[in-house]
Amino acid sequence: MKKTIETLMNHRSVRKFKDVELTKSQIKTIVSAAQMASTSSFIQAYTIIGVTDKEKKKKLAALAGGQEYVAESGHLFIFCADLYRHSLIGEWENADVTPSIESTEKFMVTLIDAALAAQNAAIAAESMGLGICYIGGIRNELNEVNKIIDAPDYVLPLFGLTVGVPDQHTEVKPRMPFSMVYHENTYQKEPELLKRNLDEYNQQLSAYYDKRTQGLRNDGWSDQMAKMLQRKSRMYMKEFVEGKKLNRH
Amino acid sequence: MKKTIETLMNHRSVRKFKDVELTKSQIKTIVSAAQMASTSSFIQAYTIIGVTDKEKKKKLAALAGGQEYVAESGHLFIFCADLYRHSLIGEWENADVTPSIESTEKFMVTLIDAALAAQNAAIAAESMGLGICYIGGIRNELNEVNKIIDAPDYVLPLFGLTVGVPDQHTEVKPRMPFSMVYHENTYQKEPELLKRNLDEYNQQLSAYYDKRTQGLRNDGWSDQMAKMLQRKSRMYMKEFVEGKKLNRH
Repeated sequence: MKKTIETLMNHRSVRKFKDVELTKSQIKTIVSAAQMASTSSFIQAYTIIGVTDKEKKKKLAALAGGQEYVAESGHLFIFCADLYRHSLIGEWENADVTPSIESTEKFMVTLIDAALAAQNAAIAAESMGLGICYIGGIRNELNEVNKIIDAPDYVLPLFGLTVGVPDQHTEVKPRMPFSMVYHENTYQKEPELLKRNLDEYNQQLSAYYDKRTQGLRNDGWSDQMAKMLQRKSRMYMKEFVEGKKLNRH
Repeated sequence: MKKTIETLMNHRSVRKFKDVELTKSQIKTIVSAAQMASTSSFIQAYTIIGVTDKEKKKKLAALAGGQEYVAESGHLFIFCADLYRHSLIGEWENADVTPSIESTEKFMVTLIDAALAAQNAAIAAESMGLGICYIGGIRNELNEVNKIIDAPDYVLPLFGLTVGVPDQHTEVKPRMPFSMVYHENTYQKEPELLKRNLDEYNQQLSAYYDKRTQGLRNDGWSDQMAKMLQRKSRMYMKEFVEGKKLNRH
């Protein structure tokens, strides 16, 4: 039993892989595990694209911000929100499903479904001794990503998942204090309490970065978040998603 | 190693629990495992509310569609998308984070973050011999759910997760065929191929329901999806989410 909790608690993103491709059997195990995740009303609203074509993989790595390890991993999965097959079922079964599948509610359902499946894939891979990294960077240029995988309406690429044999060992990154993330019965919103918790966490994270970078970096979580969120990134997303006929009303 | 894959492959939702509350130590293990999931740019954009107050639990169970096992589980977690603390950090660090945190891109980030964490929680619980069920039903009445947990702007309750000692044994539900969910390099959109795959899957699922319900039910996946998606459910969601200052632009 303990093995699974250990796998979960030892997660770190791997960004350097050995030159070993995943076997068909490993891919099958990972995808099958993904499929066993819970799914809202059994909707199974996602599709996984496995990128084996080297040219496509290189292009996707470049679009995701030139991250070499994306091209050099053992396998690259692209997780897509997917209500395309539901739209066809609607046609074939003479059911008007359009208002439903174009709603914000179903957009949320597809995202959550895809993410639950992806995390099962990640855990399966890690339990097999492989390393993983999520690639949100593909959302930098979804129009281009979409062309590469040729996804129709109602199919939205969400993120990549690179999987492979790890060629680096990094430290586990300290998460927010338990009391910040877990509240009992009522959301704990007092700014003063948050401030105290943040002070503690900022110091802890700063010490972690300081050690990991041998003094090159020592920002806390607040700095990091403020800097990241000041940048307006991927502001085309709303329009793009609506163009895919999702999240419309 | 095999234990983890077995846990993943043996998932079934549990909707009947023994009258045993989770211990503080179990809750801590589950939440800590949730926190170790990957998080986009380390944003950690979620909060987990543990509902121990019996009155609140009953109300939430009623709002989620009168599902008794929600009130009677060993523990009820509510997973919330959360950019509230990031909004405060923006104020305190003099950083204009508003356009960013109110964007559709960051809405997607919070949903994916929360779902990755939740799935880690689910796997942790199952690996400890507990049963779980996701409760999307809380989205029936988010306004009421929100009042119960008193969540501020930028905090959106997404789903519940009931956890407890299983008091039933159900069969694993057959997922879509591998070739429907996993495509190589290019999205496989040919309707004829989908039709053939669906025929096979509909028969398989129909046989599963027939056996499980001793002949009371034998619909295929296409029927089930058409019926479900014909209903316009939770169409208030877009407005509610925007009212929470999320998914606005």
